[in-house]
Amino acid sequence: MCQLLGMNCNTPTDICFSFAGFQRRGGATDVHADGWGIAFFEGCGARLFLDPQPSCKSPVAELVRNYPIHSKNVIAHIRKATHGRVALENTHPFMRELWGRYWIFAHNGALPENLAPPTEASATHDEATESGFQPVGTTDSEAAFCWILRQLRQRFGATPPARDDLFSTLQALTLELGARGEFNYLLSNGDWLFAHCSTKLAFVVRKAPFDVAHLADEDLSVDFSELTTAADRVAVIATTPLTDNEQWTTMPAGSLWLFEEGEPVAQAATVAAPPRTTPLPGCTDTCTP
Amino acid sequence: MCQLLGMNCNTPTDICFSFAGFQRRGGATDVHADGWGIAFFEGCGARLFLDPQPSCKSPVAELVRNYPIHSKNVIAHIRKATHGRVALENTHPFMRELWGRYWIFAHNGALPENLAPPTEASATHDEATESGFQPVGTTDSEAAFCWILRQLRQRFGATPPARDDLFSTLQALTLELGARGEFNYLLSNGDWLFAHCSTKLAFVVRKAPFDVAHLADEDLSVDFSELTTAADRVAVIATTPLTDNEQWTTMPAGSLWLFEEGEPVAQAATVAAPPRTTPLPGCTDTCTP
Repeated sequence: MCQLLGMNCNTPTDICFSFAGFQRRGGATDVHADGWGIAFFEGCGARLFLDPQPSCKSPVAELVRNYPIHSKNVIAHIRKATHGRVALENTHPFMRELWGRYWIFAHNGALPENLAPPTEASATHDEATESGFQPVGTTDSEAAFCWILRQLRQRFGATPPARDDLFSTLQALTLELGARGEFNYLLSNGDWLFAHCSTKLAFVVRKAPFDVAHLADEDLSVDFSELTTAADRVAVIATTPLTDNEQWTTMPAGSLWLFEEGEPVAQAATVAAPPRTTPLPGCTDTCTP
Repeated sequence: MCQLLGMNCNTPTDICFSFAGFQRRGGATDVHADGWGIAFFEGCGARLFLDPQPSCKSPVAELVRNYPIHSKNVIAHIRKATHGRVALENTHPFMRELWGRYWIFAHNGALPENLAPPTEASATHDEATESGFQPVGTTDSEAAFCWILRQLRQRFGATPPARDDLFSTLQALTLELGARGEFNYLLSNGDWLFAHCSTKLAFVVRKAPFDVAHLADEDLSVDFSELTTAADRVAVIATTPLTDNEQWTTMPAGSLWLFEEGEPVAQAATVAAPPRTTPLPGCTDTCTP
């Protein structure tokens, strides 16, 4: 399995502190040594640093840890390979362009090798659709990302949806894929950050009054009150909490979250309601309503 | 204007030496101080380092200069902004995925702001085509790259063309765009590197017997005979020669080159033949054959 780290802010913020702890999990304090990557949105541009080396030893990770890049949306990933060999093309996050915006995606979990959900198998042949949003590597994760983008393009054509339409569509797509395996993910287009907890994901929102935070993976503290203004708000999302003295919220399994301007603004269930087994009034046996 | 640097090899090679000289042109020995970027293919994966800072001062450029990444195809660019503000989204090279492969593109020159060549304006409306391969930034360069990819997708559908079909199609597309402005570019999908000289581009092929090369922009030499095997072959392509003691070939204006395994394997003209003004036999006046 892998680990995810995301950040969504209302003002461009660097992720050096959180990344310092996260980086240690890539082969030092934890076993995720099969590559790592991080993507920063800066306006609508995106920078993607990838390295198939363990993050705890990677010169690129050292650069990221020490070079403060200010961003409103960041997605990082450290990998423990399950599907797909250790190689650059299998290193998360993945990036594609849709509707003139970059989309960044990272996944923690495992999906079936042959990812052809029923809605796509029955779709009519579309050469243009088939020629783009194809995986370059061999991970289940990139296959899932490409499938989501193909679905979005098929549903919305040339016109990007409004935020809430996008969220409800992602909820439906995640429900479909999430039924097939473990599917924790982070997805962003630079405006919004979508976080799906299939089994394990937590977040903390830092806002005024800011305080000292202490990393769980390294003896390193930062006093955010010295680095922030009263208006700043930063949400940090991670597979497991990165600090040991802050109040992290554990997301329920099967929940999709939308973060905007440094806070969660929407949440939706991504598990099908369990089948009803208790008799309904008027039934003599178990009913399907 | 900008400067281009490309490398195509028959064995994965690092570009540290050539990049050292190129980096100096980004604000130190030359005026290209509006950002820089470099892309490395490693197998079918790609790493893209971008920085809107001048390359001579960029911490990311220092990393690239000192961290040997071995690659068979590299494209780098330093920018002097003409179209589009200095921003990450306007920083070359640009990357897109088509047919399950990454494509990397960088441009030196200037094309008209409204880039809608006649073949596209008259094409039938295609929502899927319009939803992908759209520029994220505001440069003429990214617009040209996206136009080329849309044309390739329209012509070849879901099936990637063979090398020679791709080359002749690129020749036709380049002829069309090149007639509209200055269009020096480098394009690669990790297998092949296409180099178009609209006005200015040169290359050198390094192969056995290897010798000492000396940078033109910095007092730095390298003895390639100590770093290579007899079978190695490396083509380096740049806007102007990077070394002052090697034999560089100046490409003719209006020529498209295909590099593979460290050497040029095809070349084609991308200027329309000049109108004939001499009478043909049997004509009494100037003829159009």
